[in-house]
Amino acid sequence: MEILALEGTQRARRHDRVVGEEPLEIRLAASGVTRTLAVTMRTPGNDFELAAGFVCSEGIVRDRDEIAEITYCLDAAVEPEQRYNIVTIELRASVTLPDLARFERHFAISSSCGVCGRAQLDSLRELGAKPLDDAVRLPAAVLYSLPQRMRNAQRIFETTGGLHAAALFDESGETIAVREDVGRHNALDKLAGWALLQSRLPLRGCALMVSGRASYEILQKAAMAQIPIVASVSAPSSLAVQLARDFNVTLAGFVRGERANLYSAPERIIA
Amino acid sequence: MEILALEGTQRARRHDRVVGEEPLEIRLAASGVTRTLAVTMRTPGNDFELAAGFVCSEGIVRDRDEIAEITYCLDAAVEPEQRYNIVTIELRASVTLPDLARFERHFAISSSCGVCGRAQLDSLRELGAKPLDDAVRLPAAVLYSLPQRMRNAQRIFETTGGLHAAALFDESGETIAVREDVGRHNALDKLAGWALLQSRLPLRGCALMVSGRASYEILQKAAMAQIPIVASVSAPSSLAVQLARDFNVTLAGFVRGERANLYSAPERIIA
Repeated sequence: MEILALEGTQRARRHDRVVGEEPLEIRLAASGVTRTLAVTMRTPGNDFELAAGFVCSEGIVRDRDEIAEITYCLDAAVEPEQRYNIVTIELRASVTLPDLARFERHFAISSSCGVCGRAQLDSLRELGAKPLDDAVRLPAAVLYSLPQRMRNAQRIFETTGGLHAAALFDESGETIAVREDVGRHNALDKLAGWALLQSRLPLRGCALMVSGRASYEILQKAAMAQIPIVASVSAPSSLAVQLARDFNVTLAGFVRGERANLYSAPERIIA
Repeated sequence: MEILALEGTQRARRHDRVVGEEPLEIRLAASGVTRTLAVTMRTPGNDFELAAGFVCSEGIVRDRDEIAEITYCLDAAVEPEQRYNIVTIELRASVTLPDLARFERHFAISSSCGVCGRAQLDSLRELGAKPLDDAVRLPAAVLYSLPQRMRNAQRIFETTGGLHAAALFDESGETIAVREDVGRHNALDKLAGWALLQSRLPLRGCALMVSGRASYEILQKAAMAQIPIVASVSAPSSLAVQLARDFNVTLAGFVRGERANLYSAPERIIA
């Protein structure tokens, strides 16, 4: 697109590429019923992985064999550029559907005032998250190298500057996969969805690097995919730390140069 | 909290402060009915502003006189640290409630496949957003100074490093208000809520600076508050640019040093 580039008092017309952002509706089809689970603003691309990662993060699907089919909803009446905006995950008939009530916003209010971080962690347990007993060990030198390794793996980043990334590494620092999105939770869902569709879940022995902050949502998705080590160049939040400690996830923040802060399970990072 | 600080091959126990993150449930009480509008993960603080900004961004409330009362739900049965997690906005009886169907996730699917960026912009128009005819002019030198001015205004940032910020400036670059949160959309809702409760809406003649990326959501909230200039140190998304162009919001990205990119309505930035 055409933009105006300012530099000091100069201005120049230039062509610039910006990162794409479009809504994606994620639908779940099971036992003859199709439901909308979520609408997320995402960067188009890897949409099937994003949808698969979402149902994995939400504890609906644990194994790729539970998925019969993933499809775009292509409505001929809709303009071409708007067609790839609905993805339906169809479960096999044999899959037992969990309670999906949480996807309906409770318009009728609950009587209790118990919405709190603790309740969030409890509900994560109900989704099947368990403390990770992963014995993987990551050398500190490898931890320090992850931000640069992730940047190397990002192909789009250099040209738009507008994308969050999530990257997966093995214990020697080799890149396993990297995914990008305008939303960092989507980047991680794409990564988890890739793992699900490759039958690589749980992600034992892996380290996850995310751009941006380590929020509750990032740790939640990591715990559901059973990733034992989560690293960020930035700060974690209090609830992210609480979750990491409860579920024995190694959480490293401020990974910059030869420094890092370990907020939980530090024994997995060795000298 | 206690953390382990790594530096090269050294490790040291240290005390560290991390930014708070707790869920907040936003409720709307009108005509004797109380509904849950949203549950958001936020940094505690300025909760009434956050709730007020949310109902403003969603087109439910336009003027502080429409609000009868804002209250915490304090349930004696709930532990003290978990009590400040529900805020109820009670509207005056005279207020006509808009259609709130969009706050119920449509569990029954719609027949059309028309979820797309264009549909998002159309629905924003239905909420009352209009192209801004604001004639404010901001010198480029002031635009370049906004990132540093915002950092100066952030009190918490230096100690935790974990917060997003949204700051409001007048056309000479004077700081009007700054708000922070673990979520950048919450930081902007707190700012808009502050303006609503101070009867300062619409925010004509103002410039908004946000940390992080300029996404669709940021531009949506800015357009609802009628902020004519939005600046970011980072990249905008395609849908953010589309929204800015449709609603005549000046969108500046990559505001770094003496440089910036203008994606829309560049006439408001003068040499």
